[in-house]
Amino acid sequence: MKVAWKIYSAALERDTTADTDILDITREVEAELARSGVREGLCLLHVAGSTAALTTIEYESGAVADLARAIERLAPRGERYEHDARWGDGNGYSHVRSALLGPSLALPVSGGGLVLGTWQQVVLCDFDNRPRRRRVVVKVMGEAEVG
Amino acid sequence: MKVAWKIYSAALERDTTADTDILDITREVEAELARSGVREGLCLLHVAGSTAALTTIEYESGAVADLARAIERLAPRGERYEHDARWGDGNGYSHVRSALLGPSLALPVSGGGLVLGTWQQVVLCDFDNRPRRRRVVVKVMGEAEVG
Amino acid sequence: MKVAWKIYSAALERDTTADTDILDITREVEAELARSGVREGLCLLHVAGSTAALTTIEYESGAVADLARAIERLAPRGERYEHDARWGDGNGYSHVRSALLGPSLALPVSGGGLVLGTWQQVVLCDFDNRPRRRRVVVKVMGEAEVG
Repeated sequence: MKVAWKIYSAALERDTTADTDILDITREVEAELARSGVREGLCLLHVAGSTAALTTIEYESGAVADLARAIERLAPRGERYEHDARWGDGNGYSHVRSALLGPSLALPVSGGGLVLGTWQQVVLCDFDNRPRRRRVVVKVMGEAEVG
Repeated sequence: MKVAWKIYSAALERDTTADTDILDITREVEAELARSGVREGLCLLHVAGSTAALTTIEYESGAVADLARAIERLAPRGERYEHDARWGDGNGYSHVRSALLGPSLALPVSGGGLVLGTWQQVVLCDFDNRPRRRRVVVKVMGEAEVG
Repeated sequence: MKVAWKIYSAALERDTTADTDILDITREVEAELARSGVREGLCLLHVAGSTAALTTIEYESGAVADLARAIERLAPRGERYEHDARWGDGNGYSHVRSALLGPSLALPVSGGGLVLGTWQQVVLCDFDNRPRRRRVVVKVMGEAEVG
């Protein structure tokens, strides 16, 4: 089997609500990885926008609720924010949460699959105070089998 | 148009002050990306040093002040730090902040541009307690047009 | 000297204890980078599992203790966690810490070496409440000298 360097680009879309959504997107990312044909390399995920973030967690409702609570403590929704005082958006807390958690996640690709633990899922966190349609860009780079 | 794999390396330098600087470096990063010629791939940014970090935020003074306040809460400047007790640097809080936020940021490149939201800028955070000249390494990898 | 694109894969293993281990893995990562032969590119590190994380810090015992204290504040071990109430694992705090710090770290490679500050080391953080054998996947991608 011959191999060649390849880059594959795709985007996922997910609808969110107005109250710290933490959504499991592992299956959609794995589907794009399969389409890419890349066997060895990396998968870079990025959510555009300054009120969302990407990370990993064991996706069960207890751990997800625990994470939401810790994030609420990092930047409480009820506090006074300068951003809100100037712009009236009411989502100052969302901007701070997003900057602290980060908009990108890079995962290794081995043997055509994402390197993840059994109890480790990829999650999209939306912190905004209104429903959004979120777009996650997926870039897969590496060696693919050809011919 | 033919394409070829390419890696491009550059570094940005910025002067900082002694009090949690959060600096917008988006334009400088985009200029390096344009020079790279890469159309599809990724842009990896890294700030060397253990008292700085990289992330994204909507770069307006309100959100930036809100982020600085949340970071102050993560590792308050006035607390007692073991690092300071041993080394007398007085910047123990800076080390903790840097480790929590992280020194690297990877962004996708699509159509020759950074994938970012309209209100999402790349920021260099300097937490040190003295002015520094900071160096941000930029690596762009991917497909470039040739010939 | 001719160059060619290359991807190199390896994994490090480290034994951990049951109480927020923060371990310096810089030397092991640099050894894998040297084996890869890659001169310009990136080094992606990932720890599989939902109770660990990767970041950088100045690896001296004071700064490491300061970081552990800040992490304890992010998700205190003694609090009540929904994860524990449902599954009885007792490591709800570990899951939250891991999600907040993140499982991946991407570093630039220049001139065959990791781009890091002099006082900046790569650390594996294990937050679990029991000893583990941790596996860190190392992917090095970029230009290597050939022939």
